[in-house]
Amino acid sequence: MPAISSFQDHITFLKGEIEKALMKVPIHETPRYLYEPIKYVLSGKGKRLRPILVHLSGQAHDADPADLMKAAIAVELLHNFSLVHDDIMDGDETRHGQPTVHQQWDESTAILSGDGLFVLSQLILSGLPPIVHQRFNEVTLAVCEGQGMDKEFEHDSSITMGQYLIMIGKKTGALLGLCAELGALLGGRNKEEAHHLFEFGLNLGLAFQIQDDFLEIFGDESTMGKSLGSDIREGKQTALTILARDKDPKGWDRFTSNSPSISDYQSYFEANKIQSEGERVINHYIDRARRGLEVIQKEKQDHMNQFATMILNRKF
Amino acid sequence: MPAISSFQDHITFLKGEIEKALMKVPIHETPRYLYEPIKYVLSGKGKRLRPILVHLSGQAHDADPADLMKAAIAVELLHNFSLVHDDIMDGDETRHGQPTVHQQWDESTAILSGDGLFVLSQLILSGLPPIVHQRFNEVTLAVCEGQGMDKEFEHDSSITMGQYLIMIGKKTGALLGLCAELGALLGGRNKEEAHHLFEFGLNLGLAFQIQDDFLEIFGDESTMGKSLGSDIREGKQTALTILARDKDPKGWDRFTSNSPSISDYQSYFEANKIQSEGERVINHYIDRARRGLEVIQKEKQDHMNQFATMILNRKF
Repeated sequence: MPAISSFQDHITFLKGEIEKALMKVPIHETPRYLYEPIKYVLSGKGKRLRPILVHLSGQAHDADPADLMKAAIAVELLHNFSLVHDDIMDGDETRHGQPTVHQQWDESTAILSGDGLFVLSQLILSGLPPIVHQRFNEVTLAVCEGQGMDKEFEHDSSITMGQYLIMIGKKTGALLGLCAELGALLGGRNKEEAHHLFEFGLNLGLAFQIQDDFLEIFGDESTMGKSLGSDIREGKQTALTILARDKDPKGWDRFTSNSPSISDYQSYFEANKIQSEGERVINHYIDRARRGLEVIQKEKQDHMNQFATMILNRKF
Repeated sequence: MPAISSFQDHITFLKGEIEKALMKVPIHETPRYLYEPIKYVLSGKGKRLRPILVHLSGQAHDADPADLMKAAIAVELLHNFSLVHDDIMDGDETRHGQPTVHQQWDESTAILSGDGLFVLSQLILSGLPPIVHQRFNEVTLAVCEGQGMDKEFEHDSSITMGQYLIMIGKKTGALLGLCAELGALLGGRNKEEAHHLFEFGLNLGLAFQIQDDFLEIFGDESTMGKSLGSDIREGKQTALTILARDKDPKGWDRFTSNSPSISDYQSYFEANKIQSEGERVINHYIDRARRGLEVIQKEKQDHMNQFATMILNRKF
């Protein structure tokens, strides 16, 4: 491996290696019905944050690079499987700037190619220790549970912050947790030690997701890549709307019945201290994430810490 | 285990044990969006032929009964996963006499619960040897390929018998092959020896599927559980129609352009020796299936042979 001059260079290097490994996943030519959409998905402009995290965690634990790459690619395939199926369920039309599989082809094609991506992820895990296989699938089940909860929560305005946190923890946090945990397991850490790394990723994912809800209202449209308030207008649950409803259900009902604008939302959240409460929750999960790194030797925590900062500053 | 008085009693006993084990698969209560359809599917009236075959093969190889039950349940979950997703893709409305998941709920629910069934199958494999995990997923990929080919073949009247055999081998045969193979692998047979058992199941599956196409025309409606000729009328490829087209493309085109009745089909297939050719192909695969059993000690082949007879006589 070449000398690494900075964290950012290291990330760029890892991303390049991951792209190369993704292109080497053994994928047959036919049947094209199954494999063309899989190739289409894998050549999309994903940020590869999850496989990068597998490598960073594994490097902090002196894991074997070849094993790390297998786990990293398996995680990226798993992530893409869940995106392809979630996009059907959520009716999303674009992903990474290109049409989703069910838009480009049809739903049957998207169901089958999603399945294929997941099977490929299992095949790539072959040869890694059984605990890796087990945790990989336990977390996949949690991701399915998170998606199930998300579907249940649509149009349910009685969801509490506690339920919401469990949902995003399973749907988004658990997979980041798995990435960090796999690096530790492949570095020979036992299950309990490795669990601290799961906590790192899980809590980082929670902080990120709540921050995302926050930026939807208080952010900058050009950085967000979508218009402010779009989730709220679609009636989706977000951390801020749940906090506001939890705090003053009647006031919130009155407020939302008047088709508020984004600046109305901003004023409401500020006046009712929802903004500061949201910031407090985000910082709570950031602290918990960083505490998960304490099992790593001090001098090896640096890249993991910088990864957290990169994620939270959306510099990727 | 109680004394077994006959093959049929043994099958009944195994089916009962499999049903009990299926009810013990650890399935959470919530989210109900994910788990209710899974419970609904598993309580359906499946014949459990695949897990029964895992046990029979494993018993012929003196495998550990607890390991066999894990593999048997994993295979049954895998089978149900593929049925739930295939039923969406094929627009089928009933399965084992009850509405399919996407009919009873909706497509999103069916996609997610299918995914969940597959993840559960992977979790149940935990602790079994890596080769079991690997073969399980290699065959699952073949099943996905078979479904992809089947979708490609819809409305394509240039499919040859060779292509059709590859498709049904992947879509139907490979999973039966896996069942027999897993019993051998869990009984300590090496990969090459176990492959003979894969060949047994694969070829049995091919014979069964071609026979199914045959019975569609020459069978008895009450035994078939569907009206004769329904696949042909829907424009599906069947072994007999492909054989007929391969033999005399122009004659076949002329014949089918006149909306033939079932008795017209019967006369055509008899007059053009398609019936005898179909029987020859079926017997070829039955012979190949039975040859796969030759690696088993003579006195232990009996139940496997009777299983093949049961399948081919549709006595289940």
